Amino acid sequence: MRGQWGNKLQLSLFGESHGEAVGVVIDGLPAGIALDMEAVGQDLARRSPGRDPTATQRREPDTVRVLSGLYRGKTTGAPLCGLIDNVGARSQDYEALLTVMRPGHADYTGWVKYKGFNDPRGGGHFSGRLTAPLVFAGAVARQVLARDGVTVGAHIQSIHTARDILLDDAAVTAESLDALRAMRFPLLDPSVEETMRDEIERARTAGDSVGGVVACAAVGVPAGWGEPFFGSVESVLAGLLFSIPAVKGVSFGGGFGLTTKLGSEANDPFLMDGEDIRTTTNHHGGILGGITSGMPITVRVGLKPTPSISRTQRTVDLRTRQPAEINVGGRHDPCIVPRAVPVIESAALLGLLSLALEVDGR
Amino acid sequence: MRGQWGNKLQLSLFGESHGEAVGVVIDGLPAGIALDMEAVGQDLARRSPGRDPTATQRREPDTVRVLSGLYRGKTTGAPLCGLIDNVGARSQDYEALLTVMRPGHADYTGWVKYKGFNDPRGGGHFSGRLTAPLVFAGAVARQVLARDGVTVGAHIQSIHTARDILLDDAAVTAESLDALRAMRFPLLDPSVEETMRDEIERARTAGDSVGGVVACAAVGVPAGWGEPFFGSVESVLAGLLFSIPAVKGVSFGGGFGLTTKLGSEANDPFLMDGEDIRTTTNHHGGILGGITSGMPITVRVGLKPTPSISRTQRTVDLRTRQPAEINVGGRHDPCIVPRAVPVIESAALLGLLSLALEVDGR
Amino acid sequence: MRGQWGNKLQLSLFGESHGEAVGVVIDGLPAGIALDMEAVGQDLARRSPGRDPTATQRREPDTVRVLSGLYRGKTTGAPLCGLIDNVGARSQDYEALLTVMRPGHADYTGWVKYKGFNDPRGGGHFSGRLTAPLVFAGAVARQVLARDGVTVGAHIQSIHTARDILLDDAAVTAESLDALRAMRFPLLDPSVEETMRDEIERARTAGDSVGGVVACAAVGVPAGWGEPFFGSVESVLAGLLFSIPAVKGVSFGGGFGLTTKLGSEANDPFLMDGEDIRTTTNHHGGILGGITSGMPITVRVGLKPTPSISRTQRTVDLRTRQPAEINVGGRHDPCIVPRAVPVIESAALLGLLSLALEVDGR
Amino acid sequence: MRGQWGNKLQLSLFGESHGEAVGVVIDGLPAGIALDMEAVGQDLARRSPGRDPTATQRREPDTVRVLSGLYRGKTTGAPLCGLIDNVGARSQDYEALLTVMRPGHADYTGWVKYKGFNDPRGGGHFSGRLTAPLVFAGAVARQVLARDGVTVGAHIQSIHTARDILLDDAAVTAESLDALRAMRFPLLDPSVEETMRDEIERARTAGDSVGGVVACAAVGVPAGWGEPFFGSVESVLAGLLFSIPAVKGVSFGGGFGLTTKLGSEANDPFLMDGEDIRTTTNHHGGILGGITSGMPITVRVGLKPTPSISRTQRTVDLRTRQPAEINVGGRHDPCIVPRAVPVIESAALLGLLSLALEVDGR
Repeated sequence: MRGQWGNKLQLSLFGESHGEAVGVVIDGLPAGIALDMEAVGQDLARRSPGRDPTATQRREPDTVRVLSGLYRGKTTGAPLCGLIDNVGARSQDYEALLTVMRPGHADYTGWVKYKGFNDPRGGGHFSGRLTAPLVFAGAVARQVLARDGVTVGAHIQSIHTARDILLDDAAVTAESLDALRAMRFPLLDPSVEETMRDEIERARTAGDSVGGVVACAAVGVPAGWGEPFFGSVESVLAGLLFSIPAVKGVSFGGGFGLTTKLGSEANDPFLMDGEDIRTTTNHHGGILGGITSGMPITVRVGLKPTPSISRTQRTVDLRTRQPAEINVGGRHDPCIVPRAVPVIESAALLGLLSLALEVDGR
Repeated sequence: MRGQWGNKLQLSLFGESHGEAVGVVIDGLPAGIALDMEAVGQDLARRSPGRDPTATQRREPDTVRVLSGLYRGKTTGAPLCGLIDNVGARSQDYEALLTVMRPGHADYTGWVKYKGFNDPRGGGHFSGRLTAPLVFAGAVARQVLARDGVTVGAHIQSIHTARDILLDDAAVTAESLDALRAMRFPLLDPSVEETMRDEIERARTAGDSVGGVVACAAVGVPAGWGEPFFGSVESVLAGLLFSIPAVKGVSFGGGFGLTTKLGSEANDPFLMDGEDIRTTTNHHGGILGGITSGMPITVRVGLKPTPSISRTQRTVDLRTRQPAEINVGGRHDPCIVPRAVPVIESAALLGLLSLALEVDGR
Repeated sequence: MRGQWGNKLQLSLFGESHGEAVGVVIDGLPAGIALDMEAVGQDLARRSPGRDPTATQRREPDTVRVLSGLYRGKTTGAPLCGLIDNVGARSQDYEALLTVMRPGHADYTGWVKYKGFNDPRGGGHFSGRLTAPLVFAGAVARQVLARDGVTVGAHIQSIHTARDILLDDAAVTAESLDALRAMRFPLLDPSVEETMRDEIERARTAGDSVGGVVACAAVGVPAGWGEPFFGSVESVLAGLLFSIPAVKGVSFGGGFGLTTKLGSEANDPFLMDGEDIRTTTNHHGGILGGITSGMPITVRVGLKPTPSISRTQRTVDLRTRQPAEINVGGRHDPCIVPRAVPVIESAALLGLLSLALEVDGR
Repeated sequence: MRGQWGNKLQLSLFGESHGEAVGVVIDGLPAGIALDMEAVGQDLARRSPGRDPTATQRREPDTVRVLSGLYRGKTTGAPLCGLIDNVGARSQDYEALLTVMRPGHADYTGWVKYKGFNDPRGGGHFSGRLTAPLVFAGAVARQVLARDGVTVGAHIQSIHTARDILLDDAAVTAESLDALRAMRFPLLDPSVEETMRDEIERARTAGDSVGGVVACAAVGVPAGWGEPFFGSVESVLAGLLFSIPAVKGVSFGGGFGLTTKLGSEANDPFLMDGEDIRTTTNHHGGILGGITSGMPITVRVGLKPTPSISRTQRTVDLRTRQPAEINVGGRHDPCIVPRAVPVIESAALLGLLSLALEVDGR
């Protein structure tokens, strides 16, 4: 719990937005995996700001130093620590806000929980900056899972009211997921990009922000991973996905849409596909009874609009306990959905690797 | 993971649909809590079938025997084991299906995971029957949390296309939640009951089934419970909620609806309410940065239609690996949503108690 | 922690000495293991009292009812709950002591921890009675590990000042361990039995008690199980062994004796044994760097004398907070060492099975 | 398990002997603890080599950089990462040994477990170097526990055959423990130092090594910490102590010595000491039924002789699978017992802090 997670695969996440570095310790990795650090860098670059006009203009190089667990380019099986230095943090942007709580942020809840001792600069440990080491860990997991033939990718299903076409839960392929991962703005219908960028630009101009939905899929996961009840694939993945700041909804397969279907529509008939058993449709999102079915695993993740907006907001000053107003300055994303795509993939990858390592090989 | 869950509060769930008994061991309870077994029985009765025409006509008395952890009516602090005998299981109803997989069920995934050794009768360990000990555990958690002034309740937000009015995330009160808990068919607008029952009856007549959405709230939770990232309140609650069979979507506060709002609409302004800090609206569902804010915690849970339907379905026979047809006979619920209400409350209660016990009292 | 333990293999132990039943839930077992319940019964019988003049004359049939996780005689992979009813508990023997604390028992510490709400009858949850389900779980683990060719056994190395010959750490065989397990009073030199029984009888006659040392070995464990540091084989086994009431010392291989050896004497030289790598001696007790070496795992466990003695002892009355005297009546073992043998084997078996299940099979 | 440990207090240990750095992430610390980094440095200096003629002459400055979890000198409650750079590692000393296994080391078992991919330089992740971050974590724990009035210290009970006088389990005081901590060679009878140094020097001259026993005590721990069975104080402390390389035996209170005592001698009578309940003697080492009694917690730890010796040893070459000889060159400690003292204290401190944080404050 907290900054540590896991069973056989274990993660330990640490760092603050304006501290010296953020990082993660990954324990329980198999030995002998050759890590392609260039591919790791590509995943990190997808999360990094400053690459796209939709995102904040801060520069974060996000280069990972692997301090342990790697020898001659391969995992050793010992804990692997990846460290990402924080460079260019401008704390002075934030000092003024320290007691005037930003709505939608963890300023208040963190202050209560940590009795006022939390590092408030840039959100401290609550910062989205912590998703950088998460993406590093996900990139490592991606390379381990590639051995199993598992491919994970995602697209932007919607930003505010602009919508991409829907991912076909039953027909999604590794190739289509790889193609999405190569896009800076991953869409099934690239023509939607302009509308989405317009939504973001409109919000920026208004000093406001927008959210959206990311649809993520994993192809190549064999049947039989996961557990009934507390160790269900949904529980494991949702637990990680809800760790990502701004995530307020998670659904699998048909999700909330299944609540208006009949059982005869929602149930996915089994059929023989050559020697393989599969289902015709995939409303179950690749998970039945908490266990993978061999069909693509599909999950939708709803992200609220970035809480940092420059429009004036009503709030309270914690010091004086008086009403106050706040304009959150600094360089903020009017929409974090595109940058959230690799973070969501990483949560899925880490959950799946954890499940893979739990499979009884005996 | 698996049948065991938790950190300071720990659960160990066991049993099969047609075995001798189902049960749960609850560890980490505070000592000295007087357990009101009548109130426990009321929670169990709300989950039991045979009480309402919408549910299966099987009779499950669901009386809990507490085998340990209780002395002179009070918790001792030692592990509390609650056992519920299985009575009246008619295994012969199921024997025929053993190799013809029921669509939407865990027959196939369980068979793969457990290499054919799982108990297939009535779904075995995957059965919704296992939610009976979960409700017992939730009823115990409810009584512990009552000391903290926490009240949890839920209503049926929708069944198929029939919808109740929406729970007001910011204004929900302990009294309204208590009132819901006293209703057999918990609705904010009781006039919707007839439409909902019509939906269910129509499905039953057609040999079909329907799902729905349950909205659950917790009032009285103080600010400061939970953790950033992996131990976030959303992660803990969603992990438990997705353990419940048929749950395919979980959202907090404004949920997926926030994805079409602007930041200036989605952010909840802070204000002083006498000596207390609260927010005017509650799109954040009582959770900011993974930590409770003191506002009501609100969560929506989407349940797929019951997979057991008597209409003919296409499937595969695992033994012959040939296409087959199946009509799932026996006594099944055309809609489990009303019975799921106390199960969802229980998952919320257990998650909140776990969080409460983790709070640093030092 | 507490009553729950484990990672992939998980245990949940519950019950009190004078409650309705004691039991254990075992989660994470492989599916498809045929359980020989007669062999389980034999392990339980070795722990049961009333079979030998050295032990208390109480009768505890210790028959296990398996409530879940077993179908057609084989493990299903779902949680397996074993329940042992408490019969013939005579609570009236204990009622008098409730506030006069027995020295050497958990009466005082349990009362402080649980704020006076713990079940005091017969030690409640602290009772050695809880080792019965532990032996059941160990018996199950024994049958799973038999598939891997692992054999675990133990002998009584000493009782008070009477000593058996020492187990040869390097030469112990599966056959010798099986032979020990067939003995009611397991000794390498059976001629020592009379002296040991004399020690026990002398203590009994004096209203006193004696302790001793049990040496336990596992043969057939391959090299490569366990982890460096926190997951070391020593950490896992010691954690379980120190869970057994009365255990106050644990050592591996040469143990404390190595502290007076030179490095050149203590290091075990490697050699080729046909195709296999092994060591000539086994001062390391089959564990190097926390990981099994393929040599026999040997562990010595020191048990204090049974704290229940009928001689008058000085103590304090918790109610009056005044000095008091106590004569612990009832039927108590003057020496629990012989009955502890299967309990210690069980802790070793459960630790080893846990380690086995953690081995990366990928 | 593995490099991660814990429940509410969680540790994540990483690094290799010849990697860039070693470190630890500590999660679950209370917020607002002012860290005295000078005191932390003193604990680290006690473990560092090069300070004393008994130890290896390598220079390891062991300065900790705190990367997270600390703000304005106080803990924030977020994960605290401490990093210690590896400087002056001379890998060339080791390259020759890579396939010729050193007896008594983890070369073989690590090679099997990690399939040959582990970092072999200087023992890699198995190195005693990893105890540096453990001592850092222990130093932090010491400062947190100081608030509770807990003092932990230790002395060298024996080195090879040279023995200090025994610590009085019942009479040890915080003052005496503080005094021991101020000594470079902590002894109750300082006159023994010369004999012990002679033992070490004799071993060094002979190209050999010696081990010993460390006795550690904690004073000021209140009654009521810990749990019965799996969470017993003995289980928690032993699990951590057996994580330390070279530890082969652990005992509490009277330990193995109790096995030759009568129950009437071993039981510690309770008495009133003013308003407090205590025991006259302390054979139970401050722990009854797995729970602290308020008496000093005393634990003895047996360390085998350093396995690195320059005398010729027989072994096997993993590459050729042929017999081989080895002289372990480089700069090694002929006795690590003095340097192990703060490591053992740290394991005890971390175990106790973990137990403290688990205490139900509600």
